[in-house]
Amino acid sequence: MNAPSSLAAPLSRNAFEARLRRIGEERYHDLHPFHRRLHGGDCTPDEVRAWVINRWQYQSRIPMKDAAFLSRVVDADLRRRWRSRIEDHDGGVEEGGGIRRWLALARAVGLDPAYVESGVGVLPATRFAVDAYVRFVRDMPLLDAVAASLTEMFAPKIHAERIEGLLKHYDFADDTSLSYFRNRLAEAPKDVAFGLNWVLDHADTLEKQDAAAAALTFKTDVLWAQLDALWHAYVEGHVPPGAWQPGEGVLA
Amino acid sequence: MNAPSSLAAPLSRNAFEARLRRIGEERYHDLHPFHRRLHGGDCTPDEVRAWVINRWQYQSRIPMKDAAFLSRVVDADLRRRWRSRIEDHDGGVEEGGGIRRWLALARAVGLDPAYVESGVGVLPATRFAVDAYVRFVRDMPLLDAVAASLTEMFAPKIHAERIEGLLKHYDFADDTSLSYFRNRLAEAPKDVAFGLNWVLDHADTLEKQDAAAAALTFKTDVLWAQLDALWHAYVEGHVPPGAWQPGEGVLA
Repeated sequence: MNAPSSLAAPLSRNAFEARLRRIGEERYHDLHPFHRRLHGGDCTPDEVRAWVINRWQYQSRIPMKDAAFLSRVVDADLRRRWRSRIEDHDGGVEEGGGIRRWLALARAVGLDPAYVESGVGVLPATRFAVDAYVRFVRDMPLLDAVAASLTEMFAPKIHAERIEGLLKHYDFADDTSLSYFRNRLAEAPKDVAFGLNWVLDHADTLEKQDAAAAALTFKTDVLWAQLDALWHAYVEGHVPPGAWQPGEGVLA
Repeated sequence: MNAPSSLAAPLSRNAFEARLRRIGEERYHDLHPFHRRLHGGDCTPDEVRAWVINRWQYQSRIPMKDAAFLSRVVDADLRRRWRSRIEDHDGGVEEGGGIRRWLALARAVGLDPAYVESGVGVLPATRFAVDAYVRFVRDMPLLDAVAASLTEMFAPKIHAERIEGLLKHYDFADDTSLSYFRNRLAEAPKDVAFGLNWVLDHADTLEKQDAAAAALTFKTDVLWAQLDALWHAYVEGHVPPGAWQPGEGVLA
């Protein structure tokens, strides 16, 4: 008979890291057919627009998610290190930040940035998935919240593939429109190094390792569910009531 | 018969601002006997230490309170403007910030900064008051949360009085130990100008003006309750179980 998880020995640091990385290899959304289609140049302009509109919902909530995390951290040093994530996404009062760069992409694909920013037309399933992530970070133990952020470990690969694929296949792609992804290539590794070490240090029982792995799995679900909804609505053509219809929110 | 508040006309902008300022004149904790005692040079060294230990609980939660606010703000511009409050209090990864300056004050009055930072010995009533404030900002409408921050309108006066009073009456007082208050003299007016305008702009019905006034009143209660608990415990000498006792947490 196996010992219950709470009594069994934790995995070694290396074995636990390998377990987390395997979650990415098996479940990260670089494996989703929508991304293959996008990066391979097979998306129609309206499919690209639908992706930009819906992914905005995720981007725009990331600083709120990180603030929810900060609001629960008593350790000032941890807060100070985490705060740069909000700065990276929101930017300064006047300029910079991932959110503004995402809106530059929106403009490049022919969308009115104000329409995208309004969130009108976002698929309800996207909204639900993103809200689930923000709530998770607000309500779950800090270890789980940090572990959920570790999908960033897998992001540089998809960003590099995306930059290459978009530049090759789409007219809108250039240094300005893709600046969001280029910046993330520089920002994500710093966040990952800190977050991964923090999780490896703090998941010091098998029970906590299980919780961290479950949190990272949950986060891959959050990302995957958004692309499933996008595919169903805009590749298969089943746009739900109230969601964006091609032609809406385009630049005059 | 008077119309119900939700139907009556709102106060003019000037009248509403005057209503908010009156709350400070009548209820801000500069009126509390503990502050008169502190600024007048009548506190014993241990009373000063008790104040430093307990006020830390408030200072240390302010960045968490502001992060809780950020986590609820969908408007990126508002988030960008609010974020400087967290920066002012937490400082950078290596240096700066109100929290570190408060710990410099702790050291100057003979306390071990690590003891103060631990929060051990803080009066339960202080903890409850501070937690009530953080929860208020997390749970209440944004207007109420911003209005509660407007005690900052009344802070420069008390900080100036405090700097003068402490310098005159206490040996520990110098530019280093009082740097927290000097910095707040510069930081608070910028926050107040923004927050006050935001409240005046957004409280566009009498019902909302009432809610904003109630929020500011609540916040004056949060501050006052901390000094009542301090007075009862350390001036009158009724220290509750588990709270700091003179001699604990002092520098070797």
